[in-house]
Amino acid sequence: VRRQVDVSDLVTRARRGEPRAVARLITLVEDDSPQLQEVATQIAPASGTAQVVGLTGAPGVGKSTTTSALVKAMRGAGKKVGVLAVDPSSPFTGGALLGDRIRMQDHATDPGVFIRSMATRGHLGGLAAAAPQAVRVLEAAGCDVVLVETVGVGQSEVEVAALADTTVVMLAPGMGDAVQAAKAGILEIGDVFCVNKADREGADTTVRELRAMVSLGRSAHASDHKASADRRESAESAWRPPIVKTVASREEGIDELLEEMRKHREWMAAHDVLRERRVKRAAAEIEALVLRTVRMSLSGPHGPRLRRAAEQVVSGELDPYTAAATLN
Amino acid sequence: VRRQVDVSDLVTRARRGEPRAVARLITLVEDDSPQLQEVATQIAPASGTAQVVGLTGAPGVGKSTTTSALVKAMRGAGKKVGVLAVDPSSPFTGGALLGDRIRMQDHATDPGVFIRSMATRGHLGGLAAAAPQAVRVLEAAGCDVVLVETVGVGQSEVEVAALADTTVVMLAPGMGDAVQAAKAGILEIGDVFCVNKADREGADTTVRELRAMVSLGRSAHASDHKASADRRESAESAWRPPIVKTVASREEGIDELLEEMRKHREWMAAHDVLRERRVKRAAAEIEALVLRTVRMSLSGPHGPRLRRAAEQVVSGELDPYTAAATLN
Repeated sequence: VRRQVDVSDLVTRARRGEPRAVARLITLVEDDSPQLQEVATQIAPASGTAQVVGLTGAPGVGKSTTTSALVKAMRGAGKKVGVLAVDPSSPFTGGALLGDRIRMQDHATDPGVFIRSMATRGHLGGLAAAAPQAVRVLEAAGCDVVLVETVGVGQSEVEVAALADTTVVMLAPGMGDAVQAAKAGILEIGDVFCVNKADREGADTTVRELRAMVSLGRSAHASDHKASADRRESAESAWRPPIVKTVASREEGIDELLEEMRKHREWMAAHDVLRERRVKRAAAEIEALVLRTVRMSLSGPHGPRLRRAAEQVVSGELDPYTAAATLN
Repeated sequence: VRRQVDVSDLVTRARRGEPRAVARLITLVEDDSPQLQEVATQIAPASGTAQVVGLTGAPGVGKSTTTSALVKAMRGAGKKVGVLAVDPSSPFTGGALLGDRIRMQDHATDPGVFIRSMATRGHLGGLAAAAPQAVRVLEAAGCDVVLVETVGVGQSEVEVAALADTTVVMLAPGMGDAVQAAKAGILEIGDVFCVNKADREGADTTVRELRAMVSLGRSAHASDHKASADRRESAESAWRPPIVKTVASREEGIDELLEEMRKHREWMAAHDVLRERRVKRAAAEIEALVLRTVRMSLSGPHGPRLRRAAEQVVSGELDPYTAAATLN
């Protein structure tokens, strides 16, 4: 039996910035607790108060080092920062400081920084369902910026883009080139590109290839948009994603990266893109929750009916379309 | 306006084995036609009459050549054969004979062979929704065996396993090794393994590595099953997937491959695994159809309500869980 939690008390303490209350609320979100609805209702008014920045890229490009350097710079500017490190492949969760995340411990005692690792538990759409709500918890705790760091594997990059106001796509010389990134579909989601480890050989080549790929992608995109008559979308296509070179381990280029993030946010606000992105994101989140409810009902209360229908389909008494219609 | 089709007439002609009627019905399935329900109801009684064999593996392992050799051998034994070539990445569809599929044209004039390429239209779950129904069309046309050939990319291998009674996983020396296959999760789905191009250097190494990986995987599996007390599953784990060496281009090893497919089917029937697999498969199919209906309603008739709810979530008036509950 799960212990009932005093949600109001937790929310009050989280709003005061108590790290334990914040951690506890995110755990409720992650565990898909029955009290989640209550949590969600109470923190809803805090929604949309932070700038949500996604960081993604292949393993080894230096996402954690860059996140750490960004956090340091933002703390220097007096901002309260939340970090969600989402590992779609890891079975571990609960705020564990994994492997290369160790350097984030620089900030472990800073009350103005909340750091949390989340695992997506292997189920598709896991990030889609839990992460936006975890972002809201961090917003309720007063974070001005929430950085969502995701390993660029499979679906997750696309999901991180669906989660963030601004998506930073990271590359590094020798760590999977721009062509591979293009194939993986992560160029399209980049609002800002960061070529890290820029002191290494091949950095200029990476930047050059990236620039070529990005402008190719954009022109393909632009002609798509001409076809659709959506003016907002076409305004969005007018943003030209900048490429910033960084050496995060020496904190080089970090201010420039922050500046480009700021410019992107400004541009979005000026073109009414920010609100539109957030509405689309919320719609995707609601849809994921609806689908999850249906899936849960089919594996739970409606499980026996589904089983019976499946048996009838196998024996040819029933077709699957009719079966689906009766179960809906 | 789409032309109404006389479904009864089409089904009657498909049952007689007319290739055009069969092709037309599969197109209705693929296009998600409004008449699909009618098609499904009429062909339901033919369900489960064929042996469904999935073939998967990385590009270049020789899936088409092997399929062609298998078809030839099965035709020699007097069997009627259907081939569904599913290309999850291809935007092309409609029975196009793509690239290396050209050699399937050996069978193009044989009335005992139906060949069809299907694209999954990029949307996740596309194969899950359309392919099982296409298999039923081929069963209605009197096929004794349906071969479902899938390029081993992303999700698709797992979906092909969900579709087939027997899944043949193919490897070839130098074309992605056994370790990579293990990482991609395709070893777990193999009921029979086929190392093609076995006349090439490195074939024995591939077989040896594969054997090691498979027995490793199985023992990990077996201990899982001990924990669960499901006897059927534990019977299933008792099947030891054989490894067959083939040189499909010279039709070598094809009879042995067929023999192992036959043995697997026999074993499944003896252990009540066949029916259980099919029921699980049908349940997954029904679930995919239910979810699709929900998705379609959220992007169609319920679209404006979803949009309004998303706007309220963005402004903090509503939480997404409450929004999802009202839209369900």
